[in-house]
Amino acid sequence: MNLDDLARSTGEWLRGVGAMSDVVVSSRIRLARNLADFPFLSTATGTERTEIYRSVTDAITSTGGHEGSLLVDVAGADDIDREILVERHLISRQHLSAEGSRGVAIAPDETSALMINEEDHLRIQALGSGLELESLWRVVTDLDDALGERLAFAFDRKLGFLTACPTNVGTGIRVSVMLHLPALKITKEIERVARAARDMRLAVRGMLGEGTDVTGDLYQISNQTTLGKSEPDIIEPFCKVIIPKIVEYERTAREALVKHNAMQLDDSIWRAYGTLANARRIGSEETQTLLSPIRMGIHLNRFDLLDIPALNELFLHTQPAHLQKLHGRLLDDNDRDEVRADRLRSRLAC
Amino acid sequence: MNLDDLARSTGEWLRGVGAMSDVVVSSRIRLARNLADFPFLSTATGTERTEIYRSVTDAITSTGGHEGSLLVDVAGADDIDREILVERHLISRQHLSAEGSRGVAIAPDETSALMINEEDHLRIQALGSGLELESLWRVVTDLDDALGERLAFAFDRKLGFLTACPTNVGTGIRVSVMLHLPALKITKEIERVARAARDMRLAVRGMLGEGTDVTGDLYQISNQTTLGKSEPDIIEPFCKVIIPKIVEYERTAREALVKHNAMQLDDSIWRAYGTLANARRIGSEETQTLLSPIRMGIHLNRFDLLDIPALNELFLHTQPAHLQKLHGRLLDDNDRDEVRADRLRSRLAC
Repeated sequence: MNLDDLARSTGEWLRGVGAMSDVVVSSRIRLARNLADFPFLSTATGTERTEIYRSVTDAITSTGGHEGSLLVDVAGADDIDREILVERHLISRQHLSAEGSRGVAIAPDETSALMINEEDHLRIQALGSGLELESLWRVVTDLDDALGERLAFAFDRKLGFLTACPTNVGTGIRVSVMLHLPALKITKEIERVARAARDMRLAVRGMLGEGTDVTGDLYQISNQTTLGKSEPDIIEPFCKVIIPKIVEYERTAREALVKHNAMQLDDSIWRAYGTLANARRIGSEETQTLLSPIRMGIHLNRFDLLDIPALNELFLHTQPAHLQKLHGRLLDDNDRDEVRADRLRSRLAC
Repeated sequence: MNLDDLARSTGEWLRGVGAMSDVVVSSRIRLARNLADFPFLSTATGTERTEIYRSVTDAITSTGGHEGSLLVDVAGADDIDREILVERHLISRQHLSAEGSRGVAIAPDETSALMINEEDHLRIQALGSGLELESLWRVVTDLDDALGERLAFAFDRKLGFLTACPTNVGTGIRVSVMLHLPALKITKEIERVARAARDMRLAVRGMLGEGTDVTGDLYQISNQTTLGKSEPDIIEPFCKVIIPKIVEYERTAREALVKHNAMQLDDSIWRAYGTLANARRIGSEETQTLLSPIRMGIHLNRFDLLDIPALNELFLHTQPAHLQKLHGRLLDDNDRDEVRADRLRSRLAC
């Protein structure tokens, strides 16, 4: 696998399957780990960064990994390739714009991604479609065990794993899910739900995590603190109580829309389709905004010109870096909007 | 012909033909006449109104008229039928909502319409597609002559024809054209053109005349005063100089759009189409607004899913009264928006 193949595929986490996948687009668990023999990155020299990078990639390679894994040298990658990794949620924007040696090891089908020298020396991430935190937990645990045999992680008997940011100290775990909440948005209940989530010390963010706006009614919800809790203490209420509750709210809101405002709902779905299938230039944000009612429409069996995997492919491939990669060359803003409209039309025109 | 047939047809003035019909949708000339033996309507009693109505309709009937003419008793017509006459520009909104005996005699193909007891006892109107004022002038003159032989019109040797409103005294003529000026709107030159027209003592109004807003980039331009001028003095500069000048501005603006902003132009045309062809509910005003770029697109050979007669039919038949008449029953606002969307979809869906 190389980055070109990656850009053409849509990845495991956009397959549109898994528990509650009508609302939960994808789940992610990541662990933050640091090497005991090196300072945190905030104080590490360039040479130390490079040594950390080498130690971690050596450990990854020696685990055998999987056939078809991909190690990307993020420092050496070109801008488009780096952006592609961000658009696929394989690296963070912070990782993209950091300095010095850094990289990411990506498993086939993007079921896991190991970020080296992001905020911590190592971040072990597992990604999946729908609400599948238990299986993701097994993936990250296996990776953590395999790498822990080869690397000495910074660990304190009392505090647990030591991390660059205090909020990650302890288990170093962050559990997050990407939720599609268009009906709660329409019924204006979204703010109440977001407030309740924040009261439970959960972070509510845009699709691309910290500091990003919500577009396309996609919300990323994640735990904020890990200190003093075990991993099951964090995962279980999240996956058994909190997320199912939000999913229930969204489903109830969707049912109410179907029952009381079916025509308005269909109107918004089909107008979105009409614009996407006919525009001659269209921005990335507008595209995501318009794909939202269509996504809901498919789940409610009110729109059948696309299925979820096809929609997810469009969703991913119309983002700026993917668009340029698939088009084969760099494009300015205007050209991008035209190429995006062409791609949408060729997939959506009847 | 009856009103049901009328509602189904689109009429001569929406045929999309005639001089400069890429910009001039239609032309109209009307003459204001009053019977010498009766007071103006502002002071006429109900009985006098009825007598005027009878005198004028008798005169119309005795001219023989044409096979297939239609005399509508506006006072006795139901609301929808009255609104249909307004939507077809055969009567004014003022005529619709007036009190007492009144009516309109409509020639086959709606080439002329004689309003009885609107603001004046009689208004002789000729309507046509494109910029065709000379032929319309012949139509109104013939009607004026024929009726003048049978009715004594209020006439003063010095002032000319006497009318209810001083601005009509003299020839009693009003010449107006409906212009489609989307490019001047986009390039923001429309205000300058409208100001220049007003400086020449022309009225610039919305499609349905006095007191109506501009929708769908359709502007009605007409002369304001008639006193002290002969009919040719009014018609000739209007039809040979003023309107051609505005048409030239609009054409130049369209050419500039094609040359410098073709993609933006196509985008607006196709987005409008996408919405019209997919919406599940849509208002009358939004429909007219969206038909505007499509009208321009057809004339610029950038849109070929419709031709102008088909567009004009949609334009007319999606207006509230036509919509209900063709649907066969009264509809509330919500239902109307759904039926309108259905009609648009059935005509536009690919």
